[in-house]
Amino acid sequence: MATRPVLSDEQASEGAVQLFDEIRRVRETDFVNNFWRTLGNDPGHAANLWQRLQDVMQPGALDPLTKELIYIAVSVANSCTYCAHSHTAAAKARGMTDEQHSELLQVIAMASETNALANCLQVPVDECFEAG
Amino acid sequence: MATRPVLSDEQASEGAVQLFDEIRRVRETDFVNNFWRTLGNDPGHAANLWQRLQDVMQPGALDPLTKELIYIAVSVANSCTYCAHSHTAAAKARGMTDEQHSELLQVIAMASETNALANCLQVPVDECFEAG
Amino acid sequence: MATRPVLSDEQASEGAVQLFDEIRRVRETDFVNNFWRTLGNDPGHAANLWQRLQDVMQPGALDPLTKELIYIAVSVANSCTYCAHSHTAAAKARGMTDEQHSELLQVIAMASETNALANCLQVPVDECFEAG
Amino acid sequence: MATRPVLSDEQASEGAVQLFDEIRRVRETDFVNNFWRTLGNDPGHAANLWQRLQDVMQPGALDPLTKELIYIAVSVANSCTYCAHSHTAAAKARGMTDEQHSELLQVIAMASETNALANCLQVPVDECFEAG
Amino acid sequence: MATRPVLSDEQASEGAVQLFDEIRRVRETDFVNNFWRTLGNDPGHAANLWQRLQDVMQPGALDPLTKELIYIAVSVANSCTYCAHSHTAAAKARGMTDEQHSELLQVIAMASETNALANCLQVPVDECFEAG
Amino acid sequence: MATRPVLSDEQASEGAVQLFDEIRRVRETDFVNNFWRTLGNDPGHAANLWQRLQDVMQPGALDPLTKELIYIAVSVANSCTYCAHSHTAAAKARGMTDEQHSELLQVIAMASETNALANCLQVPVDECFEAG
Repeated sequence: MATRPVLSDEQASEGAVQLFDEIRRVRETDFVNNFWRTLGNDPGHAANLWQRLQDVMQPGALDPLTKELIYIAVSVANSCTYCAHSHTAAAKARGMTDEQHSELLQVIAMASETNALANCLQVPVDECFEAG
Repeated sequence: MATRPVLSDEQASEGAVQLFDEIRRVRETDFVNNFWRTLGNDPGHAANLWQRLQDVMQPGALDPLTKELIYIAVSVANSCTYCAHSHTAAAKARGMTDEQHSELLQVIAMASETNALANCLQVPVDECFEAG
Repeated sequence: MATRPVLSDEQASEGAVQLFDEIRRVRETDFVNNFWRTLGNDPGHAANLWQRLQDVMQPGALDPLTKELIYIAVSVANSCTYCAHSHTAAAKARGMTDEQHSELLQVIAMASETNALANCLQVPVDECFEAG
Repeated sequence: MATRPVLSDEQASEGAVQLFDEIRRVRETDFVNNFWRTLGNDPGHAANLWQRLQDVMQPGALDPLTKELIYIAVSVANSCTYCAHSHTAAAKARGMTDEQHSELLQVIAMASETNALANCLQVPVDECFEAG
Repeated sequence: MATRPVLSDEQASEGAVQLFDEIRRVRETDFVNNFWRTLGNDPGHAANLWQRLQDVMQPGALDPLTKELIYIAVSVANSCTYCAHSHTAAAKARGMTDEQHSELLQVIAMASETNALANCLQVPVDECFEAG
Repeated sequence: MATRPVLSDEQASEGAVQLFDEIRRVRETDFVNNFWRTLGNDPGHAANLWQRLQDVMQPGALDPLTKELIYIAVSVANSCTYCAHSHTAAAKARGMTDEQHSELLQVIAMASETNALANCLQVPVDECFEAG
């Protein structure tokens, strides 16, 4: 159940269909996932976000798989059901192994645990951690 | 201002001092950061966590720097001031470059943005994202 | 699946039914939504909350639609599936247009993005932002 | 204490100084706040964000003050100290009255309370809330 | 640095001073903490909240110390610096021992860890957990 | 829909089945809930967590029901659907009454409300709250 319609190709505006076609072209698949079909109710916003997403997630100083692992970590901490699913799928598509998935889970769990401890203890930040 | 005392070596119990010494030995520095000095009010908990942290963050299917980047991502999404500082320092110590830091920021920002959009639109999870 | 029973009129206590009837009277509809049917397991709590909700959401220095937009923003950031749905419906009932919905999404996305950046960078608060 | 340097004009790169000057020109003040001085370590990211922020926050179907109130709501729910301060200052600059500020607080408090209740009760979403 | 003035007795309105005096009377101390001094900018809101807080935290089916432990747990997970401090102080005033404090930390840490795991794995809720 | 397979006994590895059997033995039931069936994709992680969970949740300075209430509070604030369900069931199994459940809800709601207010007002922490 979404708060805006999940647009089929038939329901989508011309601008949204153009974006769906661009997504199909770049990903080399006929499938367009629900995130774009729902955000497509505002085609300008969706097209702008799609372009920025391509830019941010491309290979750079960090490789695309590392970027997906960071994306999953944020999504889990933000309790985003959709993004936990879609970016786990994306990480697998980029080659995440079972062993890497297991270690990702362990690091996310450890960080969540120590975040809670530091917030509960209200530990003062050490001076040496300040950026120079 | 902490909710439990930040223990100096003089204030710490024997068990806590043993842990502080172990931390100094492993890290090859005299410095013990405030997280351990505060958690050290419960030496058993602190010693158990220290051991598990060493296990989780060691090189494995993911390298230590990648693990630190994931750790920062979780800490930021959880608004943990202390861990944002301490693990950014840890990532720099493990060789994070300015370019990698910039890309980390960009991925965290992008994920936070799309998490909010997916939660606001309540996008239904696509069936194809289910684990096989 | 709820953690307390979602009470039908038949299952509800006398106090809960009185509240359901009051909700029907004020909203001029037969429909009572699941939030009240579940909170109604504690009729005193539910009745108190209903009264305060009426007070807080009435027209004042802010108009009711603006209040609903603020309500949605909080609910999304708190990952509350139920409230994202119910208050988007409420905002539409109060006249939210598609254009306003699109801009709401854009502001929520932008705020989430810059919140993450400020938390990741741990930007020190400028002195001039302090209340006089 | 920040995790990247808070750049003075003297420390900033040419690209960052250009952005600072643009901010000064648009806001008609000599003051540049710490968010931009810290994000300015990546001038391309900062300049892109500045441009998008101008676009999103300009008058549209929602007026600029309403947008600032939504921004504050998200920032509070995300526990972003910096943005809570900077956007409260921005809302005051756009004319937020004391009465509006009080009602903003009341709506944010009410939403946070009912978010927690709905999440604790795990209230099932009513079918009628689905977008048509 | 607050976003509204932290009111001294001299700065506070008549209504706020009445509340401060009531707080002093109930707590049998001259001290009024900053939460009430800041919320006191809206004396009606502050007085209403004070009354409800007294009702909710009084002895009932749960004792006051247990209620404070639950309060701390929520405040930590919500990254509320002020409430982590003030309710830890309140729990100590109600007799929380060092051993109880240590176990509170352990349970909060464990819950945070498994919350992250369940959100990362997106574990489907077992049918048997539904309320009857 | 999970992001890793929810393992039946037939699908699980030898190590996972050993853990499932241990869970059945300790809980004196044939039922193994989905959390362990999903985390069981990494049997070492699951077995380690199971052991620590038994240690943390055993009777100590806090009784097991109080620990479950704290666990629920954290899970709700972290928007963890699975843990809100499973630990509410666990609290009922440990004797949580309807009256206690109602008061738990009231404290969680009150804490969430005041957390939001303190974060919105950015109330400065009083000096007297610092640990001695």
